[in-house]
Amino acid sequence: MNHFVFIYLGNFLMFPKTLSGHENPVCLVLQWLLEKPLFVKDPQPLRVWICLQRARSVKMPSFSWLLALYLAALTGNTDGAVARESTERNCSLTPPYLPSTAVNTSLQLEELRVQMRAMNISAYIIPATDAHLSEYIAPRDARLAFMTGFTGSAGTAVVTLNKAALWTDSRYWVQAERQMDCNWELEKDVSISSVAEWLISEVPKGDEIGFDPFLFSLKTQGDYNINLDSSDRSLKSITENLVDKVWKERPSVPPDNLTRLPDRVIQRTWQEKVEHIRTQMGDNPYKPTGLLLSALDETAWLFNMRGNDIPYNPFFYSYTLLTMDEIWLFLHVERVTEELKVYLNASCEGALCVQLKGYDTILDHLKNYVTRPGVKVWIGTEYTNYALYEVITPQDKLLTSSYSPVLTTKAVKDETEQQILRDAHVRDAIVVIQFLMWLEKTVPEGNATELTAAEYVDKCRSKQKDSRGPSFATISASGPNAALAHYSPTKETNRRLTVDEMYLVDSGGQYLDGTTDITRTVHWGKPTEMQKEAFTRVLMGNIEISRTIFPSGTRGVNMEMLGRRALWEVGLNYGHGTGHGVGNYFGVHEWPVGFQSNNIGFRAGMFTSIEPGYYKENDFGIRIEDVAVVVPVQTKYGNNYLTFDTVSLVPYDRKLIDMSLLSSEQLHWLNKYYETIRSLVGAELDNQGLHEEKDWMLRNTEPFAEIGSSASVSSSSLTLIALAVAMLHNIV
Amino acid sequence: MNHFVFIYLGNFLMFPKTLSGHENPVCLVLQWLLEKPLFVKDPQPLRVWICLQRARSVKMPSFSWLLALYLAALTGNTDGAVARESTERNCSLTPPYLPSTAVNTSLQLEELRVQMRAMNISAYIIPATDAHLSEYIAPRDARLAFMTGFTGSAGTAVVTLNKAALWTDSRYWVQAERQMDCNWELEKDVSISSVAEWLISEVPKGDEIGFDPFLFSLKTQGDYNINLDSSDRSLKSITENLVDKVWKERPSVPPDNLTRLPDRVIQRTWQEKVEHIRTQMGDNPYKPTGLLLSALDETAWLFNMRGNDIPYNPFFYSYTLLTMDEIWLFLHVERVTEELKVYLNASCEGALCVQLKGYDTILDHLKNYVTRPGVKVWIGTEYTNYALYEVITPQDKLLTSSYSPVLTTKAVKDETEQQILRDAHVRDAIVVIQFLMWLEKTVPEGNATELTAAEYVDKCRSKQKDSRGPSFATISASGPNAALAHYSPTKETNRRLTVDEMYLVDSGGQYLDGTTDITRTVHWGKPTEMQKEAFTRVLMGNIEISRTIFPSGTRGVNMEMLGRRALWEVGLNYGHGTGHGVGNYFGVHEWPVGFQSNNIGFRAGMFTSIEPGYYKENDFGIRIEDVAVVVPVQTKYGNNYLTFDTVSLVPYDRKLIDMSLLSSEQLHWLNKYYETIRSLVGAELDNQGLHEEKDWMLRNTEPFAEIGSSASVSSSSLTLIALAVAMLHNIV
Repeated sequence: MNHFVFIYLGNFLMFPKTLSGHENPVCLVLQWLLEKPLFVKDPQPLRVWICLQRARSVKMPSFSWLLALYLAALTGNTDGAVARESTERNCSLTPPYLPSTAVNTSLQLEELRVQMRAMNISAYIIPATDAHLSEYIAPRDARLAFMTGFTGSAGTAVVTLNKAALWTDSRYWVQAERQMDCNWELEKDVSISSVAEWLISEVPKGDEIGFDPFLFSLKTQGDYNINLDSSDRSLKSITENLVDKVWKERPSVPPDNLTRLPDRVIQRTWQEKVEHIRTQMGDNPYKPTGLLLSALDETAWLFNMRGNDIPYNPFFYSYTLLTMDEIWLFLHVERVTEELKVYLNASCEGALCVQLKGYDTILDHLKNYVTRPGVKVWIGTEYTNYALYEVITPQDKLLTSSYSPVLTTKAVKDETEQQILRDAHVRDAIVVIQFLMWLEKTVPEGNATELTAAEYVDKCRSKQKDSRGPSFATISASGPNAALAHYSPTKETNRRLTVDEMYLVDSGGQYLDGTTDITRTVHWGKPTEMQKEAFTRVLMGNIEISRTIFPSGTRGVNMEMLGRRALWEVGLNYGHGTGHGVGNYFGVHEWPVGFQSNNIGFRAGMFTSIEPGYYKENDFGIRIEDVAVVVPVQTKYGNNYLTFDTVSLVPYDRKLIDMSLLSSEQLHWLNKYYETIRSLVGAELDNQGLHEEKDWMLRNTEPFAEIGSSASVSSSSLTLIALAVAMLHNIV
Repeated sequence: MNHFVFIYLGNFLMFPKTLSGHENPVCLVLQWLLEKPLFVKDPQPLRVWICLQRARSVKMPSFSWLLALYLAALTGNTDGAVARESTERNCSLTPPYLPSTAVNTSLQLEELRVQMRAMNISAYIIPATDAHLSEYIAPRDARLAFMTGFTGSAGTAVVTLNKAALWTDSRYWVQAERQMDCNWELEKDVSISSVAEWLISEVPKGDEIGFDPFLFSLKTQGDYNINLDSSDRSLKSITENLVDKVWKERPSVPPDNLTRLPDRVIQRTWQEKVEHIRTQMGDNPYKPTGLLLSALDETAWLFNMRGNDIPYNPFFYSYTLLTMDEIWLFLHVERVTEELKVYLNASCEGALCVQLKGYDTILDHLKNYVTRPGVKVWIGTEYTNYALYEVITPQDKLLTSSYSPVLTTKAVKDETEQQILRDAHVRDAIVVIQFLMWLEKTVPEGNATELTAAEYVDKCRSKQKDSRGPSFATISASGPNAALAHYSPTKETNRRLTVDEMYLVDSGGQYLDGTTDITRTVHWGKPTEMQKEAFTRVLMGNIEISRTIFPSGTRGVNMEMLGRRALWEVGLNYGHGTGHGVGNYFGVHEWPVGFQSNNIGFRAGMFTSIEPGYYKENDFGIRIEDVAVVVPVQTKYGNNYLTFDTVSLVPYDRKLIDMSLLSSEQLHWLNKYYETIRSLVGAELDNQGLHEEKDWMLRNTEPFAEIGSSASVSSSSLTLIALAVAMLHNIV
């Protein structure tokens, strides 16, 4: 209901919209500001933070304004004067040239080195992750960005007493050159052996290299150890983070209360889950007495609870130590309402009472637990940080597996979870259909851009029942932009959508009942033959995986070539994985399900994305991504065979399909899939009264004529026709 | 030219054949003896030894008779009186019941325990392998058999001061119960953790467990260590094998001279190979100064030499230490002729001089080398034994990779190797065609058995140019026998071949120019519908792998599901791997090429078997195995793509193929394959003047009508026909 006037650095800008009551003004204004040309080039962390805020239903406290502006300031010094000059630093000039986006890090480096001297270490390693080894991190865990100015999602910084260096991969090199000042070297080989080599050259013999063990996985620690082995430099584990000590305005833990899931989305109570996990502990031949849960979705799943601490992921800071007769839940206790305490049975100490402990007390409690005689703690090595691991001694008190039994149990959705996840995908299909229909109208008018399109699809999602915001930053990419891995549109790269370019949109939503993730690639004009062929072969890959029948327990990595095979036939391929697990109102990338080499075998009830693609550099990009559930299938001779049932329900762009390439089996699959869309999405479209969308959907799911594969039509069938014709001639 | 009369244990038997000059009388007589019912049930080690002898061209020394008889005695006490009673021991009776096949091991156990006490150990572990971790072992390495009486190829024995136990897997349990006396427990869980658990229960705390580090891989040693960790029992490495100390009549190293390959089968001289490997050492960033070669085929490959020490494998006992300026070849120097010394340039010490050292001096020489400053020894961890590994200290003098650069280089055959390996397969195809033709005639007459058939195919092979014997014990299996993994016919299991059963033959040959391995499954009567369907789907799997196009470097494990997919569709599967590398007059299972998870990615020039199958318990077994070479393929858009070119050239049984299941692409592949057989094998059949065989081949490679896949025929093509018919009706 207000107009905003925004003043910064000598410019006056009027915020061009009026706001309705349920929109978040901070988010909207910042979003708009980020699109101004004099702002930073990569506003990813801001977008992250904004979307996080959007996903919240609570009113924004006033300090959020400050936090938002602080973050904005963090990503760049907005000096309009140099904005039109080189966008990258040049440290070889005297004085060095720094673009307006570079962050002055002298102060924080100086202060960090004071801390380092006090700890008697000659170097300090700063990773990009948090204590739960999360894929997305909260602003308060953005230590790498605070120290370096660099806000990309992947990297490692090392500070010595007189040098500082950042390692990040090729997709972030330009961004790093824009955001870092000349205190920092940029190193491009991101292997730990490269970091170790640099450390050996910079750190004097006999000296120690500090690290925060909460931010190291076991593997990371092990890799550093191997690479520093016999170099006479050793790692020093320092549990108090040194960056935090100098980061005066470090964002605090969000004060929001935690929530429990409503009964309608739950089949198993937390008590049932606890007992089920305890049964697995009891069945384990190594007889663990306790199970330590470190990944944020492990605790959230076990207790059917959610929070909003991490962007795009409804998680909350937590650990759990589950023993055979006690449950210790480590979190920020002040965020647990009285109602939730009752729900958790938090006032007692029995086997099904949840004892609430402070988040920061995990290490001490774990240490104490381990001193008890006869205990053995089970951890999943993929998500446990080194700080917790290193206190579980001696060796025989430790039991490891790659993934905890919670993660492997969670991977198989129960019937309710399967049904609600399917339901969420029906509503999500309506979002994407609305979006594609809108594009069809808007693009030829010349008014849509990658950014407005991304905004539109996010808006459509927000209107669906139980929406909880996007599940990741929408990838909205036209023409050559779509050929870039990990592309997200920014003001600078933003392209107008036109009938002359292919367009790729990869988006997903969080809903109270499920998490979605879908990619469609479309063309509003006349695609080239090569674009059609590539699109069709990507689609063939998607279908070949989707329709394949396999024994229960088959690993995705051993089947994913089916997604590539049609491309390989003509010498095409793609450089990313073929799919990942998907959660129930959880992470959009949910381990350990998927097609990668470290994923576990498929079982009925698992959900995975299937997403082959093809990317032609500087030209176009194609990806066709659907989520599918693994379901049992009846076979002629065998039992315990599975296949995929696709739950993403949006038609593919007909214009891009070269029917002559599809086999009859692929065509048959496609028609059956379209029938399912018509039935399930059709009903929901009726339900929501979306008639225009229904017409669009029906038009785009017309059955294809099943005339067989090109090969059989061109040779065999024609032979048969000729035969038939010849016979008829004889007859008549 | 002689008649043999054989007398043993009160029976007179007349050897029924006359011998020609170039047949080995010991082998033939023993082979015949083994087929008598009162002999042992599993004559595998004897067959092994016999075939080894057969592969030799030198005259048999007279002690071979003794050795052969000794081995025969080893496998069983041939007491005719109990031969008709229970064939398995019963140690719970008083006195225990022992079948005639059981070996009395009291003496060797007693003597071993004397040795153990002298070394102050409480247990001694006896593995089944040799110091080169070979797949097949020589008789002098059959320590497990000597100690236990058990002659199966896989197992581990442990002797304590008062107990003895053997671990072996399910295929050998019956055999172990027949061959072992009651000194031995049989343990059925063959995991190292199970052996370790037993050790912990039997060995007093604080005591040591001895092992021969030459017979342990790094992984085996590591696994024992992990499993004994914190148990207060430790391993003790004893380099002098204790079994050898009590094995008075241990076969000696064969005195045969070693041979060099003739120039016609060589492209790269040993000097070129040495320089190529040195280049790889120089290019390695860790700068190794020496490369240790432990696998027997590594040394044999490097020097283009062969021997006959190991059954079925033309290897000789050897190690090599290759440094940047020296070559040390460890072998039994007395077996190196003067001519070979000249060939090896053995009289000097320069970079291309081969210094010959005694086989048994490897450990001392390696220890000395490691004491030099600045050296670093590169080893392949898969084939290096623990004895050699443990002397390479400190850590920074060691460089490890799974496979040595010799193994990975050898995996890619040069042009000459590719050509001669293809040539060998053409001659081998003639062998299998002769064999299949003979079966077609002989089986209906009722005179063929699994054993006579195996004999026949081996005989056919021996007649081909450059034949060097079989490359493994022929698997000749009819009906239910073919459903057993690792089946080889014995007198007891031997089945008569009939028109009512399916028959599977898996055989291969060693030729001077290559090693072959091929499996065909046939039926001489009327197969059931299920047999036809299973056979066709196995064939579809073979074809789908063979015809697939993939980027260079793709790993076999990520493609092998193509071999299973047609079976999976109807709920069928098989329980073994899908293929293994094949050598050039080397091992028939040549690592690291193949479709297993520890195989390396495919590159052009590698040879692999492709061998899907299906096994119906107690009924029949199907396997279709071909060897294929990886070749570059031109694709529409990309470079560096590969496919397979099948070099095994024998038609499949037409009667077993259900054409309606094949896709048009599979049919097309099959017809092209048959064209190749006609062309290549046809020419060689002409060349050898084998007219009847040529007719048979032509009959069996008639092109199939390419009428498309069943799906397209039944639905789409018929639609088209109907359409055409309708149109014609309108027209006429």
